[in-house]
Amino acid sequence: MSGGESLGRSVRRKEDQRLVTGHGRFVTDLELPRMRHVAFLRSPVAHARITSVDVSTPADTRVFTGADFADVVLRAQSALPSYVETGQPVLAHGKVRFAGEPVAAVVAADRYRAEDGCELVDVDYDPLPPTVCAWEPPQEPVHAEAPDNVLLERTFTAGEVDAAFDGAAVVVERDLVTNRHAGNPMECRAGVAVFDEHDRKLTFWNGTQVPHIVRNMIAELMGLPEGDVRVIAPDVGGGFGVKAVLYPEDVALCLMARAMPGVPLKWVEDRAEHLLAATHARDHRYRMRAAFDGDGTLLGIDADVTCNVGAYSVYPWTAGIEPLMAGGLLSGPYKLTHYRCTVRGVATNTAPSGPYRGVARPASVYAMEAMFDSAAARLGLDAIEIRRRNVIMPEDIPYKMPSKLVDDSGHYAECLDKALDLIDYPAVRAEQERRRASGEAPIGIGVALYNELTGLGRAASAGPRMPFRTGHDACTVRINPDGRVTVFSGVTSQGQGLETTVAQIVADGIGVGYDDVDVRIGDTDASLWGFGAFSSRQAVIGGGAAHRTAEAVKVKLLDLAAGLLEASADDLRVAGGQISVVGEPEPRISVAEVARVAYLESNRLPEGIEPGLDATRFYDPVRGAFAAGAQVAAVEVDRVTGELAILSWVCVEDAGRAMHPQIVDGQIAGSIAQGIGGALYEHLVYDADGNLSTGTLLDYLMPTSAEIPEMVIGHVAQPAANPLGVRGVGEGGTLGPNAVLAGAVHDALGVEIDTLPVSPSRVWEALHGQVVRV
Amino acid sequence: MSGGESLGRSVRRKEDQRLVTGHGRFVTDLELPRMRHVAFLRSPVAHARITSVDVSTPADTRVFTGADFADVVLRAQSALPSYVETGQPVLAHGKVRFAGEPVAAVVAADRYRAEDGCELVDVDYDPLPPTVCAWEPPQEPVHAEAPDNVLLERTFTAGEVDAAFDGAAVVVERDLVTNRHAGNPMECRAGVAVFDEHDRKLTFWNGTQVPHIVRNMIAELMGLPEGDVRVIAPDVGGGFGVKAVLYPEDVALCLMARAMPGVPLKWVEDRAEHLLAATHARDHRYRMRAAFDGDGTLLGIDADVTCNVGAYSVYPWTAGIEPLMAGGLLSGPYKLTHYRCTVRGVATNTAPSGPYRGVARPASVYAMEAMFDSAAARLGLDAIEIRRRNVIMPEDIPYKMPSKLVDDSGHYAECLDKALDLIDYPAVRAEQERRRASGEAPIGIGVALYNELTGLGRAASAGPRMPFRTGHDACTVRINPDGRVTVFSGVTSQGQGLETTVAQIVADGIGVGYDDVDVRIGDTDASLWGFGAFSSRQAVIGGGAAHRTAEAVKVKLLDLAAGLLEASADDLRVAGGQISVVGEPEPRISVAEVARVAYLESNRLPEGIEPGLDATRFYDPVRGAFAAGAQVAAVEVDRVTGELAILSWVCVEDAGRAMHPQIVDGQIAGSIAQGIGGALYEHLVYDADGNLSTGTLLDYLMPTSAEIPEMVIGHVAQPAANPLGVRGVGEGGTLGPNAVLAGAVHDALGVEIDTLPVSPSRVWEALHGQVVRV
Repeated sequence: MSGGESLGRSVRRKEDQRLVTGHGRFVTDLELPRMRHVAFLRSPVAHARITSVDVSTPADTRVFTGADFADVVLRAQSALPSYVETGQPVLAHGKVRFAGEPVAAVVAADRYRAEDGCELVDVDYDPLPPTVCAWEPPQEPVHAEAPDNVLLERTFTAGEVDAAFDGAAVVVERDLVTNRHAGNPMECRAGVAVFDEHDRKLTFWNGTQVPHIVRNMIAELMGLPEGDVRVIAPDVGGGFGVKAVLYPEDVALCLMARAMPGVPLKWVEDRAEHLLAATHARDHRYRMRAAFDGDGTLLGIDADVTCNVGAYSVYPWTAGIEPLMAGGLLSGPYKLTHYRCTVRGVATNTAPSGPYRGVARPASVYAMEAMFDSAAARLGLDAIEIRRRNVIMPEDIPYKMPSKLVDDSGHYAECLDKALDLIDYPAVRAEQERRRASGEAPIGIGVALYNELTGLGRAASAGPRMPFRTGHDACTVRINPDGRVTVFSGVTSQGQGLETTVAQIVADGIGVGYDDVDVRIGDTDASLWGFGAFSSRQAVIGGGAAHRTAEAVKVKLLDLAAGLLEASADDLRVAGGQISVVGEPEPRISVAEVARVAYLESNRLPEGIEPGLDATRFYDPVRGAFAAGAQVAAVEVDRVTGELAILSWVCVEDAGRAMHPQIVDGQIAGSIAQGIGGALYEHLVYDADGNLSTGTLLDYLMPTSAEIPEMVIGHVAQPAANPLGVRGVGEGGTLGPNAVLAGAVHDALGVEIDTLPVSPSRVWEALHGQVVRV
Repeated sequence: MSGGESLGRSVRRKEDQRLVTGHGRFVTDLELPRMRHVAFLRSPVAHARITSVDVSTPADTRVFTGADFADVVLRAQSALPSYVETGQPVLAHGKVRFAGEPVAAVVAADRYRAEDGCELVDVDYDPLPPTVCAWEPPQEPVHAEAPDNVLLERTFTAGEVDAAFDGAAVVVERDLVTNRHAGNPMECRAGVAVFDEHDRKLTFWNGTQVPHIVRNMIAELMGLPEGDVRVIAPDVGGGFGVKAVLYPEDVALCLMARAMPGVPLKWVEDRAEHLLAATHARDHRYRMRAAFDGDGTLLGIDADVTCNVGAYSVYPWTAGIEPLMAGGLLSGPYKLTHYRCTVRGVATNTAPSGPYRGVARPASVYAMEAMFDSAAARLGLDAIEIRRRNVIMPEDIPYKMPSKLVDDSGHYAECLDKALDLIDYPAVRAEQERRRASGEAPIGIGVALYNELTGLGRAASAGPRMPFRTGHDACTVRINPDGRVTVFSGVTSQGQGLETTVAQIVADGIGVGYDDVDVRIGDTDASLWGFGAFSSRQAVIGGGAAHRTAEAVKVKLLDLAAGLLEASADDLRVAGGQISVVGEPEPRISVAEVARVAYLESNRLPEGIEPGLDATRFYDPVRGAFAAGAQVAAVEVDRVTGELAILSWVCVEDAGRAMHPQIVDGQIAGSIAQGIGGALYEHLVYDADGNLSTGTLLDYLMPTSAEIPEMVIGHVAQPAANPLGVRGVGEGGTLGPNAVLAGAVHDALGVEIDTLPVSPSRVWEALHGQVVRV
């Protein structure tokens, strides 16, 4: 494809040549001379004092313990006044706070020897009573700084909540608990660190979503200049937020590498470690009260949200990441004037909670939609109808939410209408009636509307007190002497196809063929700055930077061409790698020839034009763009077993302009699949002693393709107010399934599902009023 | 050192931390997984048809022969009308043209097995008569395209030469032959090539002086986009021009790597291969006639210069590199109106000749100075006096040389005066007289004046028809978020200390400490363009680019600081990493804080200022700057053995501003040492069959520190007309020793040395009129 616009077309993904043929280069594929392997010894107990560490390992292994790195502490900071700052050690020192916490690290010739070496490290633990549930009384403070284990608490308020409730026709009250689960990417965490003592440079290959953030934080923690730390995120096999965190294991690897200069140290997490010690999420309780008037208009919300943040305040996002997101976006795409929501993050002796695709919203959307389902049932309204009466409409935009966030979308009803159309809502309702009448297995219809704040710029760093206040990405575009284009972009990819998207943007931005653009990502030495992959920000911000940069290079290209052609740059057009004068049928000069002059024929360079043909630009939209979404599903419930069968699933999103429709649909389908897994199957269960009961994929149930239904995906593509007109699309899909599936059971059986996942036992228990804890 | 100017001071060299402690990273140090090793099978005969190649190697080796790469031919091109274009195969195909030419390449698990594999390749040669000497009749054309073996011939003319000779008082005629020798860097040639079939990218670690040129040429020869070829010149252990060439072995490595994707292929040349097949130089004959008037004024030069260019026209410089340089600069720093000089490059069945520090001028300066020594003897003038009468003086500048080059120096007499002062010329002459009277071993005084065209910009690519017409270097300067500076410079280093020099320039250019600047060089992916290390160009052009870029970054730094301080940028000054308002004693803000804002606190970014703090600029002075030099030495001659003992050696150069005096003096001392080696010892000798007789360092004599005298180095530091005021200093020193030592013998004994090296046998032979060929 050497001509024509590529944006808007599902061009062949650049990364698939290697990914689909099994030639991706993941951290685990990295082999380096003299490389040695690391295993972490992890705490077998949830809460204890370490009374002694005795190390006696063979000569060819080396052991690091908490004492070695006692001076390096990860302290996630926040601007929130109520925030209690606590520290996370690199290796546990003095105390362990969750089962799975790294206590020592063993370096050996291979992983097997390193694992064996762990058995020779003798740690004595003096057990302390563990706290596992965030809403049960604390047994013993996890951190001395927070005697009640509350690491932060904030109340969002707007309007006159009590008065609103006083005047309500219906008040819905529900106590909702969501299930702890996690991203579980196919590739677990991984890193290779090597420190060159002669140029004092640390290179860290890391399966991360945020290489530049890791670079800066490692530099800060280790006291190295940023220019002396290079972080390379090669191919990364999924992230989902779990890899947007700087982990103590990462820091340990880098510190050990500095202690063993010239020796590359490799650690690839296994699945058991991952389930135990990578960040968890969504262990929340929502005590919800909602006031409605008689026609179903939402009058007020009074909520109390407790999030189990685990043993540590996740670095750098802080323990606030889930509670603050829950409180800030609980009201979703609905008009609401009277709002009170207290959120708190409570430390427990469990693995730390962190960002996971959709951050808190899969839980908070469930809590909010449950209010409408219950109110609709009480008022005898259709689930669709009650939502229509409350949803933010285009004429309400910009809509200031009760948390002060400003919604710039308003396409929710349009998404909903299209979804109802696609699922043939009247037909499904008719079938539901028919089954009710016939006594066949009942079906229920579940609905969720959601707004997703995407492409957040500078504001994303305002909450956690990160060592920066910015939200931009940078991009460098270089037209090479042969006319081909190399892009050094600040974006990263965990499979989403950013190489493709950025290439499309740059190809169209300059006017060259998609195949003539190569994109390099994930290397902090190659790109100036990228904030990373989170908050559905990369297409918007990284894409915006690529677009701005391509435009800047095009200006230079045309100035140079104008000089060579003795024409005015304004009269020139670029398409398919050829430059034409407007109105002439034949191109006058190729981009390649202009590039040659720019680099290699400075004798032809027009007066006043600097050689070279490249540019670097940043893009920061400061505030994000809301994406709208609606999901509707029809679900059959087996009254005997409690099992659900998804009959049809429709999702309509406003993701703005679709730059690559296949990638957009893949993101939506993938996030719905991940949402369904979280709604129905995935559950990280701790026993009362703080031991993880679901430490393997036999116990922790991931959905397979057999569990995921066919989906119908529709679009309401309203260009957003940014240069490419795009909205983020990576997370929205996860926001629906909890609400949709719990709502569908409610609709089918008339019973409220207050505790997730919507497992057969929960359904059975809701139907029968008995508890069958699994 | 965090404050103060570093330019002009001999700051600690950045590269010495690793180089001096034995931790340089040369190509040979590179270890990569799955790496295999290459040995080249080389022709044992100088000239032959290859009648058959029979390959029978073990299963774990792989052999490539000329037939595999027959479609890739290195064809050095030239704009010169008389130039006969010939091709150089990657591996000899059909014919071998010199003993040592690569005929096959064997890939095996290690070098030993690869060498063994060579013995299993059976090549049948049908010998052809070899031509070894360029000025004896050709036996058989080396290339069919040039039946007389003349690959180019050009006559430089100016004025009325015949008339000038007609009116001459004295005509000096000498037939001078210079000795073939070569750069012989401590590190021989080396490369590791790996081709990634999935991203179609070739990475080539190469011990080269010209990584970007290699990148472009490899890309062109292999039909790869330039952006898909990365050339990395890591630490390189000396170059001297020998590594400014693209060799067939380099191309073979890359082609083999493409044929074996994913397998890194390493070849490190051994010394025997190096002496045999790396480029040679200075196998020249100068048939000189010079006309003088009675007071020693030079009236005319009539010269015929033949250069043995070896079997191939060196890529990309062409066979013209030595003859054209000889003819263009033969008249040196002397005023000359009437000039005729025919130069030719003649192919022979010997190793190709190529660039070697000083390119031809060590030979041509010898030829020119010999004219003055002979004329002075004939006219009874002092050797100094006759030069004074003819040298270009400041008032003659700009002086158009008879070859049309324009000399911008004119400081020759000043250099000479200072040199005479430093050696105490009257005292040496007095000692000479004393010895003559006493009968002690005679001493002679040798003198050489020279001009050295340095820092040649675009004009450097005008002769050879390279695939580019440019002479610029690029530089990118990035102030990191922590305020430290990373420079991605297009320069390369083979030990000259470019990391240091570039860091000094950028540190002073911005106003930060030298220790806060890191310089990355030698990687074509990291820097936009660098022409490379040759023609004493890097300090001038790479340095100029660094200076321009630092200035551009400083403008942005001050604009940003001005916005933050609500001051005018014009009122701000940067020094020692701190920014002050003029007239205030205390600095207001640090460079680090401004950098933080530029990258990480875009909320503080002044209106209209793009984030980031970096710039890329180019510099091309188009024409070069002449450096002036004078060398004077006193030499004792042993009449019995013919041996020389250097009693004192003085060199005074005008290298412009000395950015790092120790490096400047090191370059001068090193180049004089290399010049002395070439004048006294080094000689690549072929027998009549075209076999190299001096194939080891036992036969080819390199000087050691024992042979090199103490030197006194003086400076006439006249700033050149470029931003840094510098002139190149890498090569000038090599231009003196041939002339100085031959002249000293002439002065001591009254015999003319017409054939180099000035070995004991030559001296004895000159004294006794007998030939004792060694």
